[in-house]
Amino acid sequence: MYSQVIEKRAIAVSVVDGDLRLTVDDAVVEVAAVWLRDACTGAASRDAVSGQRLFNIVDLPEDLRVREARVHGDRVEVEFAPDGHRSTFGLDALIAAKSPDPLSDSRTEHGKRLWRKASEMSPLRSYDWAGYLTDPAPALHDVVERGFALLRGVPTEPGQVTKVAETFGFVRETNYGRLFDVRVEENAVNLAFTGLAISPHTDNPYRDPVPTLQLLHCLHNASVGGESGLVDGFAAAATLRERNFRAFEILTRTAVTYRFDSPVAHLGAVTPLISLDESGRIREIRFNNRSMVVPRRHPDLAREFYRAYREFAELLYAPEAQLNFHLGAGDCLIFDNTRLLHARTAFAAAGGRHLQGTYADLDGLLSTLQTYQETR
Amino acid sequence: MYSQVIEKRAIAVSVVDGDLRLTVDDAVVEVAAVWLRDACTGAASRDAVSGQRLFNIVDLPEDLRVREARVHGDRVEVEFAPDGHRSTFGLDALIAAKSPDPLSDSRTEHGKRLWRKASEMSPLRSYDWAGYLTDPAPALHDVVERGFALLRGVPTEPGQVTKVAETFGFVRETNYGRLFDVRVEENAVNLAFTGLAISPHTDNPYRDPVPTLQLLHCLHNASVGGESGLVDGFAAAATLRERNFRAFEILTRTAVTYRFDSPVAHLGAVTPLISLDESGRIREIRFNNRSMVVPRRHPDLAREFYRAYREFAELLYAPEAQLNFHLGAGDCLIFDNTRLLHARTAFAAAGGRHLQGTYADLDGLLSTLQTYQETR
Repeated sequence: MYSQVIEKRAIAVSVVDGDLRLTVDDAVVEVAAVWLRDACTGAASRDAVSGQRLFNIVDLPEDLRVREARVHGDRVEVEFAPDGHRSTFGLDALIAAKSPDPLSDSRTEHGKRLWRKASEMSPLRSYDWAGYLTDPAPALHDVVERGFALLRGVPTEPGQVTKVAETFGFVRETNYGRLFDVRVEENAVNLAFTGLAISPHTDNPYRDPVPTLQLLHCLHNASVGGESGLVDGFAAAATLRERNFRAFEILTRTAVTYRFDSPVAHLGAVTPLISLDESGRIREIRFNNRSMVVPRRHPDLAREFYRAYREFAELLYAPEAQLNFHLGAGDCLIFDNTRLLHARTAFAAAGGRHLQGTYADLDGLLSTLQTYQETR
Repeated sequence: MYSQVIEKRAIAVSVVDGDLRLTVDDAVVEVAAVWLRDACTGAASRDAVSGQRLFNIVDLPEDLRVREARVHGDRVEVEFAPDGHRSTFGLDALIAAKSPDPLSDSRTEHGKRLWRKASEMSPLRSYDWAGYLTDPAPALHDVVERGFALLRGVPTEPGQVTKVAETFGFVRETNYGRLFDVRVEENAVNLAFTGLAISPHTDNPYRDPVPTLQLLHCLHNASVGGESGLVDGFAAAATLRERNFRAFEILTRTAVTYRFDSPVAHLGAVTPLISLDESGRIREIRFNNRSMVVPRRHPDLAREFYRAYREFAELLYAPEAQLNFHLGAGDCLIFDNTRLLHARTAFAAAGGRHLQGTYADLDGLLSTLQTYQETR
């Protein structure tokens, strides 16, 4: 066993049954030889430029074990048997490797600010377009943390909404085009393109993969009505989990189908209303009363599902849960379509209300956010 | 109870405890009142143009029940209590509603032709570009059923690969651009852009949502080596399930992180290697030795994971599992990136090998396929 005191930490390493045992003060960390070898970042193991792993699991000996381990400063040196391969690891990286990478985990409820009432988001925060262009990080961080960001003073040029998406990511083109116009249309293929009220929903639930971000840019709004609303679906799901765990479970385990059919598009996706990650954290909400198709089941199961669905809907439709605002010309909303539901009140076609929308994806936004944060 | 004999079927309907009971010959189908009401397609329930549902679950009475039901020909007429709402249902649609829609289900292994050996795909089927443009349905159907389609004689214009994607769907733009060039580059950010051999993998596993389709179009290939290979990941996962269910289970339940970092992109996704749907059907493979980061766990769990991972890798890397071919100028491969792994052998930069690739999504392809099938 080798031990040292580094930065007031008492560090010791030893080999137990071919694995590494690391003792940091009173804490013992045991690390399997195969995991350690897989994590090797030496020149023979990783590409120098991309950092990508150069070997395959099948290239490693099946009976891999740690032959010897030493501490040198804040590094741990390991020699493996039977092949004699040597690797060096940063002590802190070894200890930290247990937790998932915070960025990688950014799709779940973990670390986010869930808002159960709209009043928690008051006063409404917004970002001026010029300031956003200088430093988009605070607004992009809002999208990750709160589920949305509001930009103001965005030029009211048609097509501008795709330029906003391109400031942080890539437009997800769909059968609605690279962008879509939200205004009253005759023979609308979707109720979005009427003056009807639209209750809170996530968009394109029938698409797989679903677009993870939506942008709505207001070019003109002189209508009476047509207020926009946002609801935090993660918060509502978390409330349901506390109040009625059985109902929550049913909604995470019952796959429904979302369908959209028009003469030129046939889209369908099968998914539960609430998706969880492997640890049971809320990861995605898919909620749309217009396009949901529930498979026919035994009446007892059907009743149980619809009771759970009603309870979730009541939370989502609660007036105090809905953040309402009037989108005016130059306003652009960016929101997480896997978390937030959006809605609008009815409006009269006469007044004139013209939004343009587009879809994009969270991975590009997260990448841009991290790049800005690193260059600060 | 009302009963009839229609097309040699003995049909009877009755109301039991407020639900509908339907007897077709000897089979009894029980249908919950709330499910039935939710499935109503009457003028007050659905938009005439889009077919979208006009009401919400919270609009329905909580104590909804069937008051009366009758058969008329191949239709069932239902009157609900307490609100007196009336709906009419097609008998066959009611019976069929139990099974999920086949199209909606198209992401899983169900109904697909899994190929465990490359020889099952021999002789290699391909489609001539002109014929494909006339009727893309057979090739698109191959992508759904076999996981890939090979087009030949595609014009060798740079940028053509995005035009191929646009024949059935939409380009998924990424940090690699609307398309990417696969040829030898200096200081490659990704091993794909070197002459090294690349073992079977799925692309962009660090992206969330992951691109579900990939296209590779060969502009020029005079290199020695650089053979392309495809492996059916669904088939390998199904084999693992048969041979070692515990290993299969571990790979479906252990979330790993895939990471990609370059000066301008930081991407991460957390997912198991094998994802299942709610019924336990194989739905997605994410496999890439270059970018996988396994969280550190107790040595017993780590060893168990790596044993399962090695067994899966051995199936995927088995020479007989890999369908090999030489992509020549004008060849374009379209494949399901959530199912198939692709690979290439090493090649010398000197000879010259230039592919262009792009990403797209399965939903657009499935929509186009159904549209063509309906207009036949």
